[in-house]
Amino acid sequence: MANVTIWNEYRHERNNPDVAKVYPAGMHAVLAEALQSAGHNVRTATLDQPEHGLTEEVLAQTDVLLWWGHAAHHEVQDQIAERVCQRVLQGMGLVVLHSGHFSKPFKKLMGTSCNLKWRCVAEKERLWVVEPSHPIAEGVPEHFELPHEEMYGERFDIPQPDTLVFLSWFPGGEVFRSGCTFTRGLGKIFYFAPGHEEFPTYRHPVIQKVIANAVKWAAPSGGPAPTFGNFQPLEPLP
Amino acid sequence: MANVTIWNEYRHERNNPDVAKVYPAGMHAVLAEALQSAGHNVRTATLDQPEHGLTEEVLAQTDVLLWWGHAAHHEVQDQIAERVCQRVLQGMGLVVLHSGHFSKPFKKLMGTSCNLKWRCVAEKERLWVVEPSHPIAEGVPEHFELPHEEMYGERFDIPQPDTLVFLSWFPGGEVFRSGCTFTRGLGKIFYFAPGHEEFPTYRHPVIQKVIANAVKWAAPSGGPAPTFGNFQPLEPLP
Amino acid sequence: MANVTIWNEYRHERNNPDVAKVYPAGMHAVLAEALQSAGHNVRTATLDQPEHGLTEEVLAQTDVLLWWGHAAHHEVQDQIAERVCQRVLQGMGLVVLHSGHFSKPFKKLMGTSCNLKWRCVAEKERLWVVEPSHPIAEGVPEHFELPHEEMYGERFDIPQPDTLVFLSWFPGGEVFRSGCTFTRGLGKIFYFAPGHEEFPTYRHPVIQKVIANAVKWAAPSGGPAPTFGNFQPLEPLP
Amino acid sequence: MANVTIWNEYRHERNNPDVAKVYPAGMHAVLAEALQSAGHNVRTATLDQPEHGLTEEVLAQTDVLLWWGHAAHHEVQDQIAERVCQRVLQGMGLVVLHSGHFSKPFKKLMGTSCNLKWRCVAEKERLWVVEPSHPIAEGVPEHFELPHEEMYGERFDIPQPDTLVFLSWFPGGEVFRSGCTFTRGLGKIFYFAPGHEEFPTYRHPVIQKVIANAVKWAAPSGGPAPTFGNFQPLEPLP
Repeated sequence: MANVTIWNEYRHERNNPDVAKVYPAGMHAVLAEALQSAGHNVRTATLDQPEHGLTEEVLAQTDVLLWWGHAAHHEVQDQIAERVCQRVLQGMGLVVLHSGHFSKPFKKLMGTSCNLKWRCVAEKERLWVVEPSHPIAEGVPEHFELPHEEMYGERFDIPQPDTLVFLSWFPGGEVFRSGCTFTRGLGKIFYFAPGHEEFPTYRHPVIQKVIANAVKWAAPSGGPAPTFGNFQPLEPLP
Repeated sequence: MANVTIWNEYRHERNNPDVAKVYPAGMHAVLAEALQSAGHNVRTATLDQPEHGLTEEVLAQTDVLLWWGHAAHHEVQDQIAERVCQRVLQGMGLVVLHSGHFSKPFKKLMGTSCNLKWRCVAEKERLWVVEPSHPIAEGVPEHFELPHEEMYGERFDIPQPDTLVFLSWFPGGEVFRSGCTFTRGLGKIFYFAPGHEEFPTYRHPVIQKVIANAVKWAAPSGGPAPTFGNFQPLEPLP
Repeated sequence: MANVTIWNEYRHERNNPDVAKVYPAGMHAVLAEALQSAGHNVRTATLDQPEHGLTEEVLAQTDVLLWWGHAAHHEVQDQIAERVCQRVLQGMGLVVLHSGHFSKPFKKLMGTSCNLKWRCVAEKERLWVVEPSHPIAEGVPEHFELPHEEMYGERFDIPQPDTLVFLSWFPGGEVFRSGCTFTRGLGKIFYFAPGHEEFPTYRHPVIQKVIANAVKWAAPSGGPAPTFGNFQPLEPLP
Repeated sequence: MANVTIWNEYRHERNNPDVAKVYPAGMHAVLAEALQSAGHNVRTATLDQPEHGLTEEVLAQTDVLLWWGHAAHHEVQDQIAERVCQRVLQGMGLVVLHSGHFSKPFKKLMGTSCNLKWRCVAEKERLWVVEPSHPIAEGVPEHFELPHEEMYGERFDIPQPDTLVFLSWFPGGEVFRSGCTFTRGLGKIFYFAPGHEEFPTYRHPVIQKVIANAVKWAAPSGGPAPTFGNFQPLEPLP
């Protein structure tokens, strides 16, 4: 069981009636319920809370942070984004969802533009498990479909992932590395592409399973915190 | 808790009094005790048993196989080595210890010579954790020392590991990628270098911790078994 | 300029009139012409030649070997397959084409089943460059199409590639890691999926460009041949 | 032949007589001569020049940038550091030397602290080639020694490298991943650890060979510049 904080921009759900119909209490509420059912200890945080709900204290108590943002990436204060990155480097897991590819923390941790192709016409997305040995693929079928999603297509400008877990297929002719793991400092990161706000993607049982698996995988695993700086020799020097 | 089978060549302990002093009941007995203490369900198997103790039935019931061999790699029947490899591809974890780098199963799974430099003069080995986020590094200090080990040195002729967890330092001037993970098929593999038969390496608490961690990590994680072969289209073809 | 040997099973072209129309002198002849135009020094070898055309002498003079096989993988002598693998480990590049995924040398070098999904109904294949910085992507458009190809689909049972250069999309709903690099020993390996014998894939200018790039990339780069075995200390031992 | 810009902080050589004795005209002058001898077209740039010598125009004409900085990382303007990163993402190669591990561009591109252990007592450093197939190892011996270097030791807080080319051994008991490749965007990056300013490391012929190889490897290879953003379907949507 991990201590999870679900961060959601939480604007579309309040401003767009179509989104509100799908997620009346916000995407974070649906995700919170799913992760609680999976046995995790969950809290939520949103952009418009003081410090975006991500105080030093909250982050210190968070094993894994989920991040969904889209229209207001630029409203996230630099200092808070940096705080999130520092906590990841210290070992907090990070699960970046959908349009979070363009969030400040993800871009800073990747060091690249994280740009991609997109198209939002409610087309089908099919996800394929390409690395079935990975814990994030536990209990996931070899392929599964979302009837309506936003297309995200390659080239996805990320560093080569540690493990490519999922690939996506779109009817318009594109492919996408839709489930990718990374390690930065002591922190484990999973990027997962599905989750456009107008579709009930986070209500899909397989999507919920993947995210619950990712939380379990990304939780700190208790390795040694490195020491840095000037270091005395362990052996007598000649 | 995983079902573990510890495979040991078990010749040195019976033929060499110096080794017998260190491991009177065989290295597998010491490893078995350590892994039982860590909560695993353990059995052992040795070269001179029928089918080397690795019947289809035993392997079918094994989540993770440990492998220690040295002088008698060539006595392992090709058919049994192949059986082990097939089980790994189906999802059984494999922890290859020390001179097991030259075992038939490891070489077949790697596809390379798995050759290296070596020197056996009871020198010190220091292991450094280079990827502290990996579950195999849980509870392991940043560096630790074995007072007497066999030197294994680079170039180690293996494919690039998925994750390099440990690096070793030797006073004679060599370095070695001493803790490496690989994935083959559905199976997770960890190669761990320490463990010369004349030294009580497998009685060392940190070594035992690393191996217990590796067993936990390498156990099958429940991803989908892929289907192969002729495949009907999922979408209507134009 | 590299010394290239193109190995072709060369049976379909002689036994199947439909294939003969596409490649009257064999696929190797078309590939040879393309690679000669790219400045390489090319010879060919086929299954039905003595030693399959792959004598020790031929391999010793080969910088990069191309391999196309399909229906007669089992007719390749184990000894010759092993000879090819040994030369790769010593530094010869290997470019494995299409159904060569099931060839003895590729399977031995990968250590996995190399199995996949397939369907041969002349559907479209679209290839996407996912790692445009790789030398194999030089001069290749971001995506390109083959009007008629055999579908190869995930899960492709290979070890994680060093670099994933191309991903393929198929109209039936599948995706495939269609351009993958590996290193084994001193040898560089590129697997490239397109090339069913009934379609003029190897006459396609972009396909020829990719293969020429792969040859250039896979040629030995002059690193140190490692020494193995018992090794004297480089520093005085305490 | 690549267009190379060697960037040097160039303060130690002017402020510290001991360093001035080793590099009277600056480290960049020694590196420039070595790379010119290797056939490259070389210019230099230093911190105290306007825009640190790294105008948009200079960077646009640079295939590969070398970076040596130490005491004045913080004096590099954020805007110029960002400019360098953007050029790397667009395809410029970057060779980061020694204490450049803490430079703004490297840290931004890695997304991690890039911290490490260090000790400066003029001890020996021995470098081992662990991936001899890599072009950067061309013509380099399996191991070689620098009589006097600064110790850099693990844990080195970097993302997992694409390829680990060199490992270093130090008599005080440490190891270090001293030659690492990365890809970010279209740019290839090589980090190479040796090069403390008080020692004539950059006059060492093997070090010069490695850096010349790295420049050749890191030069843009002509792959497709990706397109990003809203994308029309390539296939008719159902």
